[in-house]
Amino acid sequence: MSRDLVVALSGGIGGAKLALGLSHVVAPEDLLIVANTGDDFEHLGLSVSPDIDTLTYTLAGLDNQVLGWGRRDETWSFMETLESLGGPTWFRLGDRDLALHVERTRRLRGGETLSAITADVARRWGVGPRIVPMSDDAVRTRVLSDGGWIDFQDYFVGQQCRPVVRELAFAGAEAAVAHPDVLAALASPGLKAVVICPSNPFISVEPILAVPGIRAAIAGCGVPVIAISPIIGGKAVKGPTAKMMGELGLEVSAAGVAARYGSLISHYMLDHEDAGAVVAQRACQAPTLMRTLQDKIALARAVLAAVA
Amino acid sequence: MSRDLVVALSGGIGGAKLALGLSHVVAPEDLLIVANTGDDFEHLGLSVSPDIDTLTYTLAGLDNQVLGWGRRDETWSFMETLESLGGPTWFRLGDRDLALHVERTRRLRGGETLSAITADVARRWGVGPRIVPMSDDAVRTRVLSDGGWIDFQDYFVGQQCRPVVRELAFAGAEAAVAHPDVLAALASPGLKAVVICPSNPFISVEPILAVPGIRAAIAGCGVPVIAISPIIGGKAVKGPTAKMMGELGLEVSAAGVAARYGSLISHYMLDHEDAGAVVAQRACQAPTLMRTLQDKIALARAVLAAVA
Repeated sequence: MSRDLVVALSGGIGGAKLALGLSHVVAPEDLLIVANTGDDFEHLGLSVSPDIDTLTYTLAGLDNQVLGWGRRDETWSFMETLESLGGPTWFRLGDRDLALHVERTRRLRGGETLSAITADVARRWGVGPRIVPMSDDAVRTRVLSDGGWIDFQDYFVGQQCRPVVRELAFAGAEAAVAHPDVLAALASPGLKAVVICPSNPFISVEPILAVPGIRAAIAGCGVPVIAISPIIGGKAVKGPTAKMMGELGLEVSAAGVAARYGSLISHYMLDHEDAGAVVAQRACQAPTLMRTLQDKIALARAVLAAVA
Repeated sequence: MSRDLVVALSGGIGGAKLALGLSHVVAPEDLLIVANTGDDFEHLGLSVSPDIDTLTYTLAGLDNQVLGWGRRDETWSFMETLESLGGPTWFRLGDRDLALHVERTRRLRGGETLSAITADVARRWGVGPRIVPMSDDAVRTRVLSDGGWIDFQDYFVGQQCRPVVRELAFAGAEAAVAHPDVLAALASPGLKAVVICPSNPFISVEPILAVPGIRAAIAGCGVPVIAISPIIGGKAVKGPTAKMMGELGLEVSAAGVAARYGSLISHYMLDHEDAGAVVAQRACQAPTLMRTLQDKIALARAVLAAVA
């Protein structure tokens, strides 16, 4: 059993960057990445798991660094043809990305679990650390805007985060069973730290925390729990985090995110740009903007040093 | 209403060649192509209709003339990635081809009929003549070999026609409802001729004839019914027709196919190479090997001249 286990909670792009950094400084058997599945949805009859896939692509070195999302060496023949058929093209699926969705859907229909499929894909593509979905049960993030409740991907991709967010809900979360390996890792005597990656707290981290047992397991784990701010100088590095905070009536700042996590976290990693922020947790500082692989590894080292 | 209506029965590759020829010499509104759906199957959770698609690609000018099957300008990223995932790769699906299967499956699940989807795809891709599936109900060709009954695509693609064929069955045919437009066309006072394309009689034409009402409607249509031999000089142009005839105990010749159709057809078109064949129907001759578009148009003209 691992004696230096790190459990990382992650959404997609931002979280995957730190997860990649962690994978370079933590032994594969000592790193368990809990992936948000609240963004998952059915599209064109296929089961799409955006955050799991971003993590898998990133850790396998298969991520598309030109687009900043999706697969490396991607081609778009499917999408072009779907368009010529008048099919739904609002969600872009590359030809290689599509293979993962088709194969996952086929295996899910055959009775395999999302976690088993995720583990097998990771193994085939040479990913070292484990990527574990928060639950094998469906949890679906929903967004309440002025027009009523909409599905997350409709908000996020379909309407490009334009609607004002009044409330978020994680449909299915109450009945979902946390993946047993996540709870086991959080209860493990070998646990060294819990890392909440610089993902959007509302739509990437809180769906994970909404699965019964996970928040309590983190709260009671007895080791440092560190979150890395997704806000730098009052702005989100990527995505709707800052906009969403404002709409939800929160202070749009690194400190606002820390306040949102509250006593769940013991440590909070800020960018040097936010050095003056007052937070209730033990504050640590490092360059948190991850452009290069070196940036990611350096931040991972800083995170682990902060909780050592 | 059409006064010069031609109804053509067709399977995939060979049938589609003559259908293309016919589309150049018959006005679009005067040509109705009845597509075999016995080859249809579910693969990777997708509804695949090989003969409908070959007809649609060919008539839309989107067929892959290099491979001799599938889509023009095809790419294979999906298949490559599926292979890296350990998924089933025995049935090759190009990225563009895949879009048609995904979109068809999506629309079928949404409650549309196969015929409505087929018509819409043809319209979007500029196909003039109507391509109508023999039925909107599922009919599945099955092959009895020494190892027992197997699905058609397992025999045809999976085992590349190696098993010895003892018997064929069209599961679902008895309960299938013939597409009403097929029966209406065959009963139309404007009907001029029925053309049985040079497709495999056993696996491309007989599934169509097995749908209740279609064989009787052809037998009673009162206009010339002409079949074009798929056998030239004792050999099939493509596919397992000759091998299958031998295995089923029939004479492997152009005349053998004519005997199989029997009194259902009034005319039989032979290649000059088979000029000596003795058949019970009115025999006509033309070069039946279709390599170029000119060959296809010439054969279509010869067929129509024979029944004029």
